[in-house]
Amino acid sequence: MRFLALLILIIPLAAAADPLPSWNEGATKRAITAFVAAVTEADSPDFVPEPERIAVFDNDGALWVEQPLYTQLAFVLERLRELAGDHPEWREEQPFKAALEGDKAALGEAGMEGVMQLLMATHAGMTSTELDAIAADWLKTARHPRFERPYTELVYQPMLELLDYLRENGFKTFIVSGGGIAFLRPWTERVYGIPPEQVVGSQIALEYKLVDGEPTLVRQPEIAFVDDKAGKPVGIWRHIGRRPIMAFGNSDGDYQMLEWTTAGEGRRLGLLLHHDDAEREYAYDRESHMGRLDKGLDDAADKGWILVSMQRDWARVFPE
Amino acid sequence: MRFLALLILIIPLAAAADPLPSWNEGATKRAITAFVAAVTEADSPDFVPEPERIAVFDNDGALWVEQPLYTQLAFVLERLRELAGDHPEWREEQPFKAALEGDKAALGEAGMEGVMQLLMATHAGMTSTELDAIAADWLKTARHPRFERPYTELVYQPMLELLDYLRENGFKTFIVSGGGIAFLRPWTERVYGIPPEQVVGSQIALEYKLVDGEPTLVRQPEIAFVDDKAGKPVGIWRHIGRRPIMAFGNSDGDYQMLEWTTAGEGRRLGLLLHHDDAEREYAYDRESHMGRLDKGLDDAADKGWILVSMQRDWARVFPE
Repeated sequence: MRFLALLILIIPLAAAADPLPSWNEGATKRAITAFVAAVTEADSPDFVPEPERIAVFDNDGALWVEQPLYTQLAFVLERLRELAGDHPEWREEQPFKAALEGDKAALGEAGMEGVMQLLMATHAGMTSTELDAIAADWLKTARHPRFERPYTELVYQPMLELLDYLRENGFKTFIVSGGGIAFLRPWTERVYGIPPEQVVGSQIALEYKLVDGEPTLVRQPEIAFVDDKAGKPVGIWRHIGRRPIMAFGNSDGDYQMLEWTTAGEGRRLGLLLHHDDAEREYAYDRESHMGRLDKGLDDAADKGWILVSMQRDWARVFPE
Repeated sequence: MRFLALLILIIPLAAAADPLPSWNEGATKRAITAFVAAVTEADSPDFVPEPERIAVFDNDGALWVEQPLYTQLAFVLERLRELAGDHPEWREEQPFKAALEGDKAALGEAGMEGVMQLLMATHAGMTSTELDAIAADWLKTARHPRFERPYTELVYQPMLELLDYLRENGFKTFIVSGGGIAFLRPWTERVYGIPPEQVVGSQIALEYKLVDGEPTLVRQPEIAFVDDKAGKPVGIWRHIGRRPIMAFGNSDGDYQMLEWTTAGEGRRLGLLLHHDDAEREYAYDRESHMGRLDKGLDDAADKGWILVSMQRDWARVFPE
């Protein structure tokens, strides 16, 4: 019985430890923990059964840095410059022209669909396995221009804690990204604890065929799905088949995802990360070419969405 | 310590109980249990880590009855007949003509894409929530013409046991169906223990918009994806992002799913259910309009796929 006694002693201590140490005390943190308590406590009027505890997260700017360029765009641009000599037509056509000239305004205008077009042109005809390997290799060696660290280390420590905290409370966590799934899936499990089957994102068309007798999925020069803006609720429904009870984003690309999530019946939580911390990360919103937050900033209060202030709410930004 | 002693006594007994009581002893059952042991035992050369233990299952004819008609087709035909008066053009156009005339050969020819066209025509403009509700209601009242039971009771008892057995061994089980996801997701969790987010299937295009101010997903008159034949590996990759280590099907619609699964590196298991039991269920293969098994029957031995004989391998077919 000594073992049991020990357990009885340890469990309340563990439960009392702060699961969100990188979140400063305040209204935002209280809103998160109150929501989780409300949907998980068995006697709560807002109780939600475990299988329905679906939480969705944008990736760029919500789980990792998206400035000065979406990471996937940085990846694609390298390859685009290598191939540009063979493609004189790119100097006239958008979004290629913007990409080669480093025209961030035009790139921002082209949005996630533009990123997918660039990805498609630079990586068409590859097999899904080949692209996975190339993206994984690039992520190992590439460094962020300002922070000089691998991109997969520029994930937000408070968000890693939030993902863990939700999962410990019976939530199933999904990424719902405007970026391509092929670029995300090779590393989301290791970095975020989110397995490939819980990554929803934009997709290039694939064709199954035998190549030298080997069953192969070959990437086609066609965008199958753009998981951005009004595409996000569609992507969630097609992939998950349930309406989430919690959504976390940071830009107007996440507006409809938050709108659809929080308009559901019962208790819901919508959060938008406001990048207002030029010192530790970046400060941008309405005028930014990447991750513009304009309509969301206007409507958050009316919709009951919480604006997370990076400066005020986060004790630290990146992992050690 | 008495409690612990009891546990020590109980655990080996529980482990020794047959997890597949509806499977007859023989080569098929041995192949399944040997495969599971090989990929789960820590010291096995074929060990596969839990997150990679992905098993995919066709639905029609693999988990439930598909004769005399795919259940989804029976559902669609009722609605089609109701609407036919308003659509004189259906008397000339395929697959509508075949459906109204009960021409099974032509319906079989139109395949899963045909079923999706019928579903689209009969249920366009509905919201995803409305269709879910209609399908769920229909399944509650509809009865199979021969067995006179609800379709959701005409699932195969040995397959329910197999799904449980795999999950107990750390597998994640997915349905990969040629049928539409909207028709499956409302009940797969209750009947098979497979949650909506683990159902891959054919899809109608959806549009997100505000209807009377309410965020809504509206079904469009366009097929977004046909998850059949060469579409199955594509659907698996897009949805799951991992190559399964085990696949279970029953028709040539599952051929590429088994081919792709079993061509992967390491130990793999491919199974095809052969419906050879006219007495307890149905006997059909090469000539059937629904669930034709022809090429799979020719190639199973060469490919190392196991033909499950319903007559020989299953002690019982349906739950009590």
